[in-house]
Amino acid sequence: MISSKATSAARACARTSRVMQQQQRRLLATVVSSSSLFPGEPSSPHVVTSQIPGPKSKELSDRIGTFQENRTHGFVVDYAKSQGNWIADADGNVLLDMFAQIASIAIGYNNPDLLALAKTDEFITATMNRAALGSFPPTNWQELVETSFGTVKPDGLNNIFTAMCGSCANENAFKASFMAYRARERGEKAEFTPEEMSSCMKNQSPGSPDLSILSFTSAFHGRLFGSLSATRSKAIHKLDIPSFNWPVVEWPDVKYPFAQNSRENAEAEKVALAAVEEAIVSSKKTGSSYGPVAALIVEPIQSEGGDNHASPAFFQGLRDVTKKHGVFMIVDEVQTGVGATGAFWAHSKWNLTSPPDFVTFSKKMQAAGFYHNIETRPSLPYRNYNTWMGDPARTLQARQIIRTIQDHNLIQKTDKVGNYIYEKLFDLIENGAGRGKIEKLRGENAGTFLAFDGRTAKVRDQLIMEMRKLGVHMGGCGDKALRLRPMLVFEQKHADIFLDKLETALGQL
Amino acid sequence: MISSKATSAARACARTSRVMQQQQRRLLATVVSSSSLFPGEPSSPHVVTSQIPGPKSKELSDRIGTFQENRTHGFVVDYAKSQGNWIADADGNVLLDMFAQIASIAIGYNNPDLLALAKTDEFITATMNRAALGSFPPTNWQELVETSFGTVKPDGLNNIFTAMCGSCANENAFKASFMAYRARERGEKAEFTPEEMSSCMKNQSPGSPDLSILSFTSAFHGRLFGSLSATRSKAIHKLDIPSFNWPVVEWPDVKYPFAQNSRENAEAEKVALAAVEEAIVSSKKTGSSYGPVAALIVEPIQSEGGDNHASPAFFQGLRDVTKKHGVFMIVDEVQTGVGATGAFWAHSKWNLTSPPDFVTFSKKMQAAGFYHNIETRPSLPYRNYNTWMGDPARTLQARQIIRTIQDHNLIQKTDKVGNYIYEKLFDLIENGAGRGKIEKLRGENAGTFLAFDGRTAKVRDQLIMEMRKLGVHMGGCGDKALRLRPMLVFEQKHADIFLDKLETALGQL
Repeated sequence: MISSKATSAARACARTSRVMQQQQRRLLATVVSSSSLFPGEPSSPHVVTSQIPGPKSKELSDRIGTFQENRTHGFVVDYAKSQGNWIADADGNVLLDMFAQIASIAIGYNNPDLLALAKTDEFITATMNRAALGSFPPTNWQELVETSFGTVKPDGLNNIFTAMCGSCANENAFKASFMAYRARERGEKAEFTPEEMSSCMKNQSPGSPDLSILSFTSAFHGRLFGSLSATRSKAIHKLDIPSFNWPVVEWPDVKYPFAQNSRENAEAEKVALAAVEEAIVSSKKTGSSYGPVAALIVEPIQSEGGDNHASPAFFQGLRDVTKKHGVFMIVDEVQTGVGATGAFWAHSKWNLTSPPDFVTFSKKMQAAGFYHNIETRPSLPYRNYNTWMGDPARTLQARQIIRTIQDHNLIQKTDKVGNYIYEKLFDLIENGAGRGKIEKLRGENAGTFLAFDGRTAKVRDQLIMEMRKLGVHMGGCGDKALRLRPMLVFEQKHADIFLDKLETALGQL
Repeated sequence: MISSKATSAARACARTSRVMQQQQRRLLATVVSSSSLFPGEPSSPHVVTSQIPGPKSKELSDRIGTFQENRTHGFVVDYAKSQGNWIADADGNVLLDMFAQIASIAIGYNNPDLLALAKTDEFITATMNRAALGSFPPTNWQELVETSFGTVKPDGLNNIFTAMCGSCANENAFKASFMAYRARERGEKAEFTPEEMSSCMKNQSPGSPDLSILSFTSAFHGRLFGSLSATRSKAIHKLDIPSFNWPVVEWPDVKYPFAQNSRENAEAEKVALAAVEEAIVSSKKTGSSYGPVAALIVEPIQSEGGDNHASPAFFQGLRDVTKKHGVFMIVDEVQTGVGATGAFWAHSKWNLTSPPDFVTFSKKMQAAGFYHNIETRPSLPYRNYNTWMGDPARTLQARQIIRTIQDHNLIQKTDKVGNYIYEKLFDLIENGAGRGKIEKLRGENAGTFLAFDGRTAKVRDQLIMEMRKLGVHMGGCGDKALRLRPMLVFEQKHADIFLDKLETALGQL
């Protein structure tokens, strides 16, 4: 009885707070700028084939299928004709793109700033004379890094390791964690023992130590051998691939909408935090089935795994427990980074009392790598090294993306558009066409990084196909989630098209 | 006595054969074209600082050091001013580049064909609208792949997986091997068991099976967690990084010059082949300390590990023993591929009775991936997948590199220039300034993919620094090898500069 009363009071309180937040947001929404980066953009979808992929997409996909996997194809794209938020396909369909190459296009197709960059001598030199950056950096590398990645470095992290993709970024952060972990164990005496030197050549301990990375259920951190060992999204990603015996902890079993379930969610987060501590502590005991946890890796919002959220308090708890036990904390911002959550870095909203040890990025940055600190720079050169060590051309592109974001205030705008969509979706699910068909809205105060579930996986899949027919291109994630991953140039007018089509599609289910 | 006589007879025979080969080569060398791709190239080095790195390089490197590892820097490069075979540094030094960004520049700095490509709409569209290729390929993808990678596909391999770097290429080939290995074990019934589905989410067998990759001592296959487990080049690459317990076999203990020691080398190769078979067979027995070998990976010439060679017969033996035991054979052509050995693919010189299962590439292709067959395409979509799945812009670049190579007959020319250098180096070591200082020349009939050892590591390191002061930029590998990795536009006139400077440098040691 008491528990039920308390729950009901908490819900009432959450409702009141929600109404106030709604009012605030509506006020803010009125100042969303109406100026567009793409004045010539289409004003509505243009669908000319009864199915997408249409016949030309299918034919081109079949031809690709003669030499390469094509069962994963959505449709074949005419990138030259795509513009801003609109993706054009091989058949002449033009769709509102809310998937953006799996969340990796930041500022729109054929953004004029980027097209101009491509024609500069600086870009042409960089792209056609690719440096082995670790050994022969270009004369502009220091200035380029400082005016690109340097302008958006997370608080407290002054070092950067540049890489080629998100999986590589995570794996190199793992390597840096392991090296720093062992360096701390060695203490002042930084030298390797002869036994370490010889055993590592046989892939055996102590040179190849039995250390581990801790990750969460439904996490996604990439698909190479180290990153895949930390990935727990779907069996199809992992089946038949040998894996490190690294530990896993259950992601907090939270309920959505998040704020309306804050009390239960806080409890669920406590359970998960306790499990994290237990996993770390037990990893260091003799007889543990896996080696000591050197680092924990976590996404601010579990993206591929279904858009699973947790509160800032949870992440603060993770920082506290990792600090307490000498475990490095890696924040994987490959999908959440670069603005879509309404902040450049999603983790900046946590207001941690001390920064994470690593922040990894890729996707919308178009360049990959991780931020870290001098403490986690390897003790000797060539320990974390490869031929390209990143890409100066993609760094120039990242710099322009960051500049365009700043020049046009795109993060603030994304925040506001996100709030606008959240409100509308909330109503649609509670009282509108979504009722009983879609549920579990998430992403309140997370910019346009929004998601909801289909009631079943089938409903979700049908909805994606219906939306496509209506001219809106979307992507799923997890078992039955539909995720919104528009670009940072997604405005209220685009949101209105999306919401209108969604209502129609839901009516047709 | 008999053995000694036989050895002496074999040597005499090898000498006669060598003289004939020399005559042939001299004949061929006269037809080396004298036309240059870079008519405005410097005709000699231009060294203006007493040390390289000079003061400006050092200053720029120090600045980079504030946010990133800089102890690995050779010098800081002015790529805009570099041209053809000549690399310009921050201080105004212009060096003959025989290292080529760790063997990754194919057709010269600021090659006019590539600069023209960079300005095309096709390239600009591709680079500034990066596709998630596995799901939304561009309309020109089929045509692009067929006119690029497709024109140089190794015999018998009709499928291609595109990736971002050499390590990723190897790791994805490992993944494809493991999946195909398990698929064959499953037979017709291709479905996963519920136990496999659930155990893989915990990184445990049978879903995450205990399978292995077999590699050789001193092999280098990359530095991510899977590829690093197959890499055995140097302890510094591996220390403190957890590793799969995968088996290793000794690289044949051959002697150089290779042809002059063909009999002993054939014996050494037999020993290694027997060890390979033993490792494979024992891996499948219960109680083996590592899981069954699913694939063997091998470089045609072990490059990072010291330019270690073996004969075509050895590789044919590897193909036979892997076929016999159902083990996939991965040929890692990341460094040997794209022409430098005097063939587009080094392994094509082996004349294997059946093709390898995988050929991986990166570096000089500027795009990465692997060739394979339909047998090793995963059973279901999304099993070997990631966001970018390669890069259409880098594929356009690869296409132009391949076309320029073909248009200018660069592989044939490289073969001839390589033979020319080999002869000269042979004389230099046997009878000239190299005697007692450098030794173990390798790369006969391997284009410009040449190497020799310093008598000691110190001699090698001094020689690299002396050569740099004289205006020739070179790289080491292994413990004491100096490797030649010029571009495919390296002509006899460049070779003469190199040989002249080498003689001088050796005289100064």
